[in-house]
Order: sequence, then C-alpha cells, then structure tokens
Amino acid sequence: MKILVLNCGSSSIKYKLYDMTGETVLAQGNAERIGLDEAFVKVTLKDGSKEEIMHDMPTHKEGVKFVFDLLLDSKYGALKNLDEIDAVGHRIVQGGDLFEKSCIVTKEVEDGIESLIDLAPVHNAGHLRGLRAVDALMPHTPQVVVFDNAFHSTMPPYAFLYAVPYEFYEKYHVRRYGFHGTSHRYVSQRVCEMLGVDIKTQKIITCHIGNGASVAAIKNGKVIDTSMGLTPLAGLMMGSRSGDIDPSAVTYLMEKLGKKPQEMADFLNKESGVLGITGISSDMREIENADQQGDPKAHLALEMYNYRIKKYIGAYAAAMNGVDIIVWTAGVGENQISTRWNVCSDMDYLGIKMDKERNNCRGKERILSADDSRVKVVLVPTDEEIVIARDTQELILEARK
Amino acid sequence: MKILVLNCGSSSIKYKLYDMTGETVLAQGNAERIGLDEAFVKVTLKDGSKEEIMHDMPTHKEGVKFVFDLLLDSKYGALKNLDEIDAVGHRIVQGGDLFEKSCIVTKEVEDGIESLIDLAPVHNAGHLRGLRAVDALMPHTPQVVVFDNAFHSTMPPYAFLYAVPYEFYEKYHVRRYGFHGTSHRYVSQRVCEMLGVDIKTQKIITCHIGNGASVAAIKNGKVIDTSMGLTPLAGLMMGSRSGDIDPSAVTYLMEKLGKKPQEMADFLNKESGVLGITGISSDMREIENADQQGDPKAHLALEMYNYRIKKYIGAYAAAMNGVDIIVWTAGVGENQISTRWNVCSDMDYLGIKMDKERNNCRGKERILSADDSRVKVVLVPTDEEIVIARDTQELILEARK
Repeated sequence: MKILVLNCGSSSIKYKLYDMTGETVLAQGNAERIGLDEAFVKVTLKDGSKEEIMHDMPTHKEGVKFVFDLLLDSKYGALKNLDEIDAVGHRIVQGGDLFEKSCIVTKEVEDGIESLIDLAPVHNAGHLRGLRAVDALMPHTPQVVVFDNAFHSTMPPYAFLYAVPYEFYEKYHVRRYGFHGTSHRYVSQRVCEMLGVDIKTQKIITCHIGNGASVAAIKNGKVIDTSMGLTPLAGLMMGSRSGDIDPSAVTYLMEKLGKKPQEMADFLNKESGVLGITGISSDMREIENADQQGDPKAHLALEMYNYRIKKYIGAYAAAMNGVDIIVWTAGVGENQISTRWNVCSDMDYLGIKMDKERNNCRGKERILSADDSRVKVVLVPTDEEIVIARDTQELILEARK
Repeated sequence: MKILVLNCGSSSIKYKLYDMTGETVLAQGNAERIGLDEAFVKVTLKDGSKEEIMHDMPTHKEGVKFVFDLLLDSKYGALKNLDEIDAVGHRIVQGGDLFEKSCIVTKEVEDGIESLIDLAPVHNAGHLRGLRAVDALMPHTPQVVVFDNAFHSTMPPYAFLYAVPYEFYEKYHVRRYGFHGTSHRYVSQRVCEMLGVDIKTQKIITCHIGNGASVAAIKNGKVIDTSMGLTPLAGLMMGSRSGDIDPSAVTYLMEKLGKKPQEMADFLNKESGVLGITGISSDMREIENADQQGDPKAHLALEMYNYRIKKYIGAYAAAMNGVDIIVWTAGVGENQISTRWNVCSDMDYLGIKMDKERNNCRGKERILSADDSRVKVVLVPTDEEIVIARDTQELILEARK
C-alpha cells in the first residue's frame, strides 16, 4: 500500500510518500511560501541531498498540484500514476473535543475541523485548504486525518480544565487540549518496545523538545497530563514562545505595550521565549554557541529553559506517584546534549542516574541512563509521519473489509 | 516595648497591638468599609468574643484615628496614652525589586512604595494611605514596613524571570515576585524549631493555602521558587483566582467576552478559581459541604484544587532534588483535612507517609506524617503579625543603639 502523508500549514505543505511494505519512504519534500512570492519546494532526494525547485504556488491547490507533479517526476518522484496512492493521511493540529482518534475524512469530519478554526486559526485553516485541494485533484482517493491532540484525550477533567467559570468550557471550549500528541504517542510506544516492557504497566514522561516543546505524563499507556494547553503557547519556555506566565502579566503588558488581544498572543508566540530573553535567536544551537562564547543572556536562557523542563518532570512524577521512563525527543531533545544532562542532573531523589558517555550522542535510539538508574532515561527520535501513515493504512484496510 | 501592627488595605485597617515582653496581644480588630457607607470596626475582645462598632470613616485618616481611639478605650483598648506605642509595623504587599528586607520608614522608603503602585495598585495605595495617616497623627513614632515578597528575594534569576523580552524586566519590572513571604518565612522557621533541625540543612516546601494560596521551595533557609508571580494571581487554583492558565486563553477569552486588560485581570482574580468552577462559593468549607451533598462541580473543583498543589510540590521537589519537610498553613491548609490528605496521598515515591489519625486535626502545631515517613509533613498555623512585630522591634532597637 502506498500512502502520502501531508502536513499542510498556512503557507507550506510538507509531504512524505510511503510504501507501507517495509515502511520505506519513496519521496519527500516541503513546499514553502505558498501564496507568497518566491515560492519553492525543497525536495529531499534518495541520497539524502536536498534540492530547491522554484515554482509559483498562489494557493494550496497549486501547491498540492505541484507536489503531485513532483511525485510523478522521474528524478524527484516515485510514481508513474497518481492512482498508485491508496490514501492520503493529514496531520491536523486541533481536533478539539470532537475527535478522540484518527478517522477517514467525510463531509462531517471536514465540517468538524472547520468548526474548530476558532481554536487554532492558522493551523486548521491551512489543513482544510490542503484537504480540499487533494479532494479536488483526486476525488476518489480516501483521506485520513490524524489529530495532534487526540492522544491527550484521555486526560481527566481535573487535569484538563482551567479554573475559570465552567461555562467557558461549555460555551467556548476553553480547556487544555495539548499538542504533539502523535509524537508523544510514537515515542512512548517505541520506548516500551526498545526496553521490552508493557506500556500498560509503565509511568512514562515524554519530553518532546523542539522549537515548540511539550511534556506529557503517560500512565499505563494513557496521557494523564501535558504541558501545552488550549493552544501550543502554554507550558515550557520555547524557541520564541513564553510558555507559562502570570496571567496578570499578560494583561499588564497589554496595557504597557498598547496591544490588542490577538497582537499580544502573537507577541508571546513569536517574540518571546529564548528569542525574547537573548535577543539572539530562537534556535537553541545558536544559543548554545553564544553561551560558550560567554554571552550572559544566552546562559540565562539555557538555565531558564532547562529549569522549566525539570519542574514539569517533577510535577508529572508527583501526578503519577513516580516515574519509570523519561524519553527525550524532537530537535532539541534529540540533539542538545547539555539540556538533557542539566535537566536530569541532581535528580537522584527520583532515582535518575545519567551516564555521561551514553548521553554524549545525537539523534539515535539509545538508553542514556546508567545501568543502575532506577528510572530509564532514553533518547528516541520521533517520527510523527510514520504514525500518520500507519493510522491511515489501518483505517483504509478496515474500511475495505 | 509596645508595637502596633497594621495591615492597611484599600478599604480596611487590620490592627494588632503587642506587648513584646512575652509577645502578648493587648488589643486587636479590623476596621472595615473605610470610605464606604456603614463602616465599622470589628474588635476582638480579650475573652475572644467579637464586637462590631459602627463608625463613619470617610478616609484612612479617620480610620486610623478611630483605631487609636479604640486603643485608648477602657473596654476595647489597652493604652492610657498613644505615646506608649514604641513603633508601628506595616504589612506591605509589593516591595518589588526595591526592598529585600524590612526597614524603617523614611521619605525615600515612602517614595519607593509609591513607585511600585503600578505593580500592585489596590494594595500599595492602601498601605501608603495607612502609613501617611499614622504619620499625620503620630509624627514622632517610628514606622517600619515589612514586605510580603521580601522573603522571596533570594530566588535566582532563572526562577524569577519570565520568558518574555528581557527589556520588559528592566523597563516594566515584569518578573516573579511571590507573595505571602512573611508567612512562608514564619512557618519555615517555626517548623525547624519544632523538629529541632537546622533550617540551613533542610529542603522545605511550605504550602500557604488560604483564600489566596501559594507554595514556596525553601532550600537551606532560602526561597528558590514560589508559585505566585508578578501578582498574586499566578500559581495555584484559589478561592476566586484562576492561578496558572494558558496565556493564550487570557487573550482568547478577552476577545470572546469583549473585556479590556484590567477587566480581564479583575475577572480572573475575582470570579474564577473555585468560585468559577462551582458557581457556589470561593469558601472551601462551603465547597466541601456541597461535595458531601453530592454536587459534581464541587467535587471537580476539589480535585482540581488538590491536584494543582500536588503538582507544585512535585515541581519543587525536582527543583531541590527532594524534600525533607512539607508544611501546611493558612485557612485551608490549617483546617481542611481532606485537602492535606488527598494532596499527600500516593506520594510514596517522595517518601511521604501520612498518618490518618494525626492528620485529623485543625489549626494547631502538629506532625501529620507517620513516624517512618521520610518526609515530615507538618501543620504550623501561620502568624504574619508576630513576624512584623518582631522585625519592627529589632529595627527600632538597632536604631536606638
């Protein structure tokens, strides 16, 4: 079975074509600047090299059309005919309270995603444009949607509700949803395979630390809490996002800066976090370099960044009465050796004992804790696309029965 | 030495007159509805009974004047002459970055408190009115100010800074200050006296859980983190305050409700928290009653309330690499048996083992954990006034040298 996985943003379309026999990637790339000038697709070739192809894509429809052209191209693609694609799987950021698991797209599903635009304006609108473009070009190919918050739908109400009037939950759907669910799901399942343990008996804390970052507490295979909230702004300090902050600081700064609500939200999403503290960058590699060159604000930002992860691990250990496994994943989690080390140091009260040698690695599956560490600390590179492809295959096979 | 402790709010003046020989309370009461109609003073008599005396108090000056009259009264008071008062000690909520400890009031100190009105408009303005009223009536009596956030001034920058542009800290003083510091200080010192341990070797988590509520992590006698922030809105779920919430939920709700920044802050302070979830009350006693009568939202509110305290204890255990002592204090912490029990249950990963019998008590100093609990859980009724009186005495004695 051949499955195309799409992650359609407001101005981008990331694609990955799988042959599910052996789960091999046949083609992949990223269409960028859709709707803007100088649009292009960055294709990753089979040898791992990348090539940028300029192409005008005024809307998502032209974007999807061009991605299809590339999939049929003898150099960049892997198909002779679009009919070879059995199904298309989409990443959807916000499924709200409507979707607790992946599903095949119907008119009803599409309407549901549309009804949630209010909760994730940028993301869900882009996803819908992608869905509709595919439908227009390949009306007979089934599509599947996989929701970023679905894995978190097992949270109990006392963990997902905010302490605001209850009617805001009923009327405006204000609650903690959590995001990166597909990643938390993949790494929590994968780590149990690696360690040969049953997820149904484990207390796992998964740290998805990338430019966006979230932590999840997974008890016996079910998420009981996660750090992102109504939106991906909440929780940890991130590349350009503030994470948690006194709610009064939001209103106080709005008055000082003369910002409207949406402007303030944008500001806290795009100009805060590591970027806001350092004034240098939202990229942790640059911050680590600046710290090594003695920049005091880079040093401060790293301390803040690590400390907040440490506190979430502590909070979730309390929520589960201990922890068996801590997983590191995503850009920073897979590659930033110092963050993993600093967060997991001085945590012997929990039974964590890191192995410095083992921790000195990037981007590969590996146990990072010492053999006599009660808590296993493990690096597991994430793979959200393969989860989307697997869900898509499973639903299609079921539907064919 | 006789010391008068005042806590001047925007429309109230709480007073307590001490004879510092033996630290006995000579007189106490609370002037309420200052500046409003039907103003009165509720006096606590020596036998513990209370009496309300109606008296018109258009401003703090009349309020302080009437408090002085009462102190001189043969029934309600304890003085023959106001000159018997050696000094007046004031509680000040917000000392910002300017005051790291208590100090004698000078023109400079007064200006400093005034400059911080922006950060705590309601509180600091009331305090200043009280200070000035005393000064006008007793210009030769020294006054001392004790700051609610001073005990938290030892927090490291990585704990007190928010992940917003650094210039907001420099320009607008936006950072975590923390509050209830006088209470956290009192109970952390008192618990070490009780247990016969040196505070300089202990990891203590103090839970000041009242209508306002905060948790502090105190390592070797110094606060390293606390749950309240720029304002007392942050952190735990409280009687009518939301505590932590996705910052985007603040801006999202402002748009939905059409609220301006200050209106939204007021809303999150006064109509959220336990009151917001239950629609019943901000008083935990009423919520506990409603829960016992089967109200599902009261039950939910209690679960949310306890869970958030549990997570903060977990976070601060991580911040300190463990915990030796957990202290419960303030209205709820001293009296709500179920909250202490539920928060400290299922925490054996930390070494907590509660004793159900011992926990079944209210408002008195007592160890609540079992003898073989590695963490001592202790109930210590707070006494902020005595700390203010002691600080005042100490500073006055020093100044007289």
